[in-house]
Amino acid sequence: MNAQLNPLQQQAQTLSESVTAPIPGSRKIHVDGSRPDIRVPMREIALSPTPKLFGEDINHPFCVYDTSGPYTDTAVTIDLLAGLAPVRAAWIAERGDSEILAGLSSEFGRARERDGALDGVRFGNRPPPRRALAGGNVSQMHYARRGIITPEMEYIAIRENQRIDAIREAHLLRQHRGENFGASIPQKITPEFVRSEVARGRAVIPANINHPELEPMIIGRNFLTKVNANIGNSAVSSGIAEEVEKLVWSIRWGADTVMDLSTGKNIHETREWILRNSPVPIGTVPIYQALEKVDGRAEELTWDIFRDTLIEQAEQGVDYFTIHAGVLLRYVPMTAKRVTGIVSRGGSIMAKWCLAHHKENFLYTHFEDICEIMKAYDVSFSLGDGLRPGSIADANDEAQFGELETLGELTQIAWKHDVQTIIEGPGHVPMHLIKENMDKQLRECGEAPFYTLGPLTTDIAPGYDHITSAIGAAMIGWYGTAMLCYVTPKEHLGLPNKQDVREGLMAYKIAAHAADLAKGHPGAQARDNALSKARFEFRWEDQFNLGLDPERAREYHDETMPKQAHKVAHFCSMCGPHFCSMKISQDVREFADQQDVAKGMAEKSQEFLAQGAEVYRPE
Amino acid sequence: MNAQLNPLQQQAQTLSESVTAPIPGSRKIHVDGSRPDIRVPMREIALSPTPKLFGEDINHPFCVYDTSGPYTDTAVTIDLLAGLAPVRAAWIAERGDSEILAGLSSEFGRARERDGALDGVRFGNRPPPRRALAGGNVSQMHYARRGIITPEMEYIAIRENQRIDAIREAHLLRQHRGENFGASIPQKITPEFVRSEVARGRAVIPANINHPELEPMIIGRNFLTKVNANIGNSAVSSGIAEEVEKLVWSIRWGADTVMDLSTGKNIHETREWILRNSPVPIGTVPIYQALEKVDGRAEELTWDIFRDTLIEQAEQGVDYFTIHAGVLLRYVPMTAKRVTGIVSRGGSIMAKWCLAHHKENFLYTHFEDICEIMKAYDVSFSLGDGLRPGSIADANDEAQFGELETLGELTQIAWKHDVQTIIEGPGHVPMHLIKENMDKQLRECGEAPFYTLGPLTTDIAPGYDHITSAIGAAMIGWYGTAMLCYVTPKEHLGLPNKQDVREGLMAYKIAAHAADLAKGHPGAQARDNALSKARFEFRWEDQFNLGLDPERAREYHDETMPKQAHKVAHFCSMCGPHFCSMKISQDVREFADQQDVAKGMAEKSQEFLAQGAEVYRPE
Repeated sequence: MNAQLNPLQQQAQTLSESVTAPIPGSRKIHVDGSRPDIRVPMREIALSPTPKLFGEDINHPFCVYDTSGPYTDTAVTIDLLAGLAPVRAAWIAERGDSEILAGLSSEFGRARERDGALDGVRFGNRPPPRRALAGGNVSQMHYARRGIITPEMEYIAIRENQRIDAIREAHLLRQHRGENFGASIPQKITPEFVRSEVARGRAVIPANINHPELEPMIIGRNFLTKVNANIGNSAVSSGIAEEVEKLVWSIRWGADTVMDLSTGKNIHETREWILRNSPVPIGTVPIYQALEKVDGRAEELTWDIFRDTLIEQAEQGVDYFTIHAGVLLRYVPMTAKRVTGIVSRGGSIMAKWCLAHHKENFLYTHFEDICEIMKAYDVSFSLGDGLRPGSIADANDEAQFGELETLGELTQIAWKHDVQTIIEGPGHVPMHLIKENMDKQLRECGEAPFYTLGPLTTDIAPGYDHITSAIGAAMIGWYGTAMLCYVTPKEHLGLPNKQDVREGLMAYKIAAHAADLAKGHPGAQARDNALSKARFEFRWEDQFNLGLDPERAREYHDETMPKQAHKVAHFCSMCGPHFCSMKISQDVREFADQQDVAKGMAEKSQEFLAQGAEVYRPE
Repeated sequence: MNAQLNPLQQQAQTLSESVTAPIPGSRKIHVDGSRPDIRVPMREIALSPTPKLFGEDINHPFCVYDTSGPYTDTAVTIDLLAGLAPVRAAWIAERGDSEILAGLSSEFGRARERDGALDGVRFGNRPPPRRALAGGNVSQMHYARRGIITPEMEYIAIRENQRIDAIREAHLLRQHRGENFGASIPQKITPEFVRSEVARGRAVIPANINHPELEPMIIGRNFLTKVNANIGNSAVSSGIAEEVEKLVWSIRWGADTVMDLSTGKNIHETREWILRNSPVPIGTVPIYQALEKVDGRAEELTWDIFRDTLIEQAEQGVDYFTIHAGVLLRYVPMTAKRVTGIVSRGGSIMAKWCLAHHKENFLYTHFEDICEIMKAYDVSFSLGDGLRPGSIADANDEAQFGELETLGELTQIAWKHDVQTIIEGPGHVPMHLIKENMDKQLRECGEAPFYTLGPLTTDIAPGYDHITSAIGAAMIGWYGTAMLCYVTPKEHLGLPNKQDVREGLMAYKIAAHAADLAKGHPGAQARDNALSKARFEFRWEDQFNLGLDPERAREYHDETMPKQAHKVAHFCSMCGPHFCSMKISQDVREFADQQDVAKGMAEKSQEFLAQGAEVYRPE
């Protein structure tokens, strides 16, 4: 059979074991919803009992949010040539408000289809496109506003809760009260809460009807903070099979959505491969492809070319589009005196177009036309921050904030059409100016979800911008950002490889979780508690497996303590057996227990205080 | 000659080139003070001119703070067997308030000296110890309070300013106004300001009179945020030569002070090697060594053993001691119900001692005795947070805050003796509880400098705790912490190797600089501006060299764009030549210049607004 496959297809048949091996110490489980086809995947981590020395506790399995899709499900056979199972297909069909089209609607899509030279790179199992019935609206927001709870919404409610009741009971959840700056996070997420948040625009469910393979997820400040990973080839590097591998790798490390930012050749075909094999929402920046269609000459872009590109991508199943409609002609000169001008690719393309024609940005003037396309497929807006600052010096300037105000105006227009909308944010911002961004975004954009790149809190660490930006990301996540766009160590320097993607994602999963903790997201602290308990009890395997990256934790431990026996040792390499503070601390606890010291000591302490708390009493 | 050296000495003769090679693109310079022997080292980064395309600017050399000592000075020949030149020796001697002792005062020191078995590991060129004249006080705080500006203070003033006047002029410094939460940072640091800050206890100059090799530096909230790196062997791993190499490696990557936390054998001898070759202050936790002297049995510790250890280390030249004098008997039971009990080694040792004897911590009861030792050598207190939280769950609890209150009380006692004091801080703290730590520390401890470990903002990422903690470190640095103790990726898992030390330091240099930016530290933004300008102008070499890690930046760039020609390319691998936003942005700038668009556009914009700012005007 392989003989009939072209080289790309052969290559794409297999993924590295590194991206599909089960995640250590855990298994895929499914939580059932109200109907048989709502089966919400989660990852369950098995824990070992507390050793006798520490009190012989049972430690119930722990459940965590799982973005890795069917790839880590041992019950599923992956076939990249066929694509993933379309779990949402029945839900979409039964709503009866869309139709299967006879063929692709975009000129470009049809031309690619006819081009025999592309047979070698084409995904072979493309489903026919689907579109809303004429004049219809298939957006989740449209349903939500009519009071309909979709299966997607129920799925999300189950997913967001992460079996919190069971975990709370099993792990005796203790958690700090958070500071959420005016968010409205309920103790438990219900399908109705999901609906109401989508209806008021405070959350979005990116879920194109042409992407039925998607496991529904939500982006909003009252839900878990999400993380996006960017992948994509460029003219300089990377191929289709590599991009699919990067997708699967990204979701393994926790990417909640993935943006395909390809700018090289065959991006139409690459995108098809990615979408058919992606269980997470896929975002794109359509202007990149539109620019390719005019050979990179921004001034030759037209609404017609762009419109055709939107339809082309919408019918492939792209879940959200970055649209730089806020780069207005009058803002462009405000960037001339900046240290780093315009650093957003999309922003600079539109700025060039505006100047070349001395006309208003056609994405702005055609914004309602775009809304019509978005609602026919349920593509969500990600309103791009084309004028985001590319340096600390340019943070929070009039160009950036002018654009943000325009994005607020556009949000209202999108909402008028029941089109789901998120807002992109900076960029490079020093810590003390971050909150101003968040507050202004909430105010201008009516709490539409904020989706920020970092922000990077300093410019001086090329090679470490996953860290400069994780600092800002954690803070802005705490303040209310709903999704954090990762930055890899290669930012500003080159294209990320697989290892960079992992580093970037880990930094951002940390930022997102730190934000959830600080907001006091219900149950967020359970994982910290479980891991710290494992650490204190020297349950090394549990400590590794409860962490964000069990593989690395184990590898680091092995470097100084390689023997398996050390995985049950009651000390570690940092201090050795005699100096271990955990060990001594446990001694203290036992000592306290034995002598009922907690009570006795309190009395002694009272006595001490009663005697005047004199430290230097004569002996 | 090598034949006469023992194996350790042979090994120690050479450092890896990786720790002594000049830092790329830069050279060591010295700024002279008021006397010939005040020569303050800095690192000057050469910059290339702006290419014609971007306006042909001259870019003057940039000057950065340099912790790397003589090791990166091509004019100095390093001889680890001789130790560094004692740059402060004359200053100390001429004050006339100390004397050279005939021999070591500590019993332990003398015993080690007599032990022929140690000849093979001993540093051969030990200077005789020096001590204050009987009843005297040689602390920088003591001088400061008597109005004396020492050469150390003048040195520090020059060092902290970093030639800011020259940089401001050459780089047309533009900087955001910061938020410093009540700090008092002057526009320019004068020797008198240094004196006044030390006098009021708001800053410390760790500078033991037995460590004349030290290049003076200062720790205080009104100065640049500092970073500490921990090194040290343990029973499980690492030797003397390796520790010296780690020291030199640490300061290369920006460690402002280094703590030697060795717990293995020969720690007395290891420390001597480190001190004689260290241009940065060295801190220790004397209780670790005291515990070795009683074979790890905490309950057998005595004041006499501890006292002898303090004198032993003070006469070697240790600049600051972590002393866990705040772990009071009455606080210990408060930790019994914690998730992770007591995680500080020193804290758990003292807790065990307190419980075993049912007596108050002898470090507390003998605190004034300790002060007498500190002032005879000018060792600074680093009052240890023995009850710091080891997990998110335990953050800001009564044990932690009880101890902090006691540290405040002890600070006042130390200051009564004119002994310099810094306060150690947590630990594991979720973001929203960080500021409470800082505010309480400032209040309880009278603005004595805060020195924090992280804090780690989540427990769930073993293998990445340099990142979980860099987030907290940046924030607490912004809020007012004076020095950040680094955390490496190996935290909780194993002993850091050289690469981990580098990763940890980079994360913390980022945190410290992000904090300085947010505080609005004068001139802090100059480096960001210079780097971003280089980035925008595609001066790749300058971008690398202005960064915190020029070697890594270059290496990452080489991965996708290896050719030397690409180092002058006006695009990068991320987007390729056609899609480069920097390129397009530059086009915009030129376009704007050509047509005087900045003016013309403003008029157009006015016109647009005058017509009612209608977006959808009929065409």
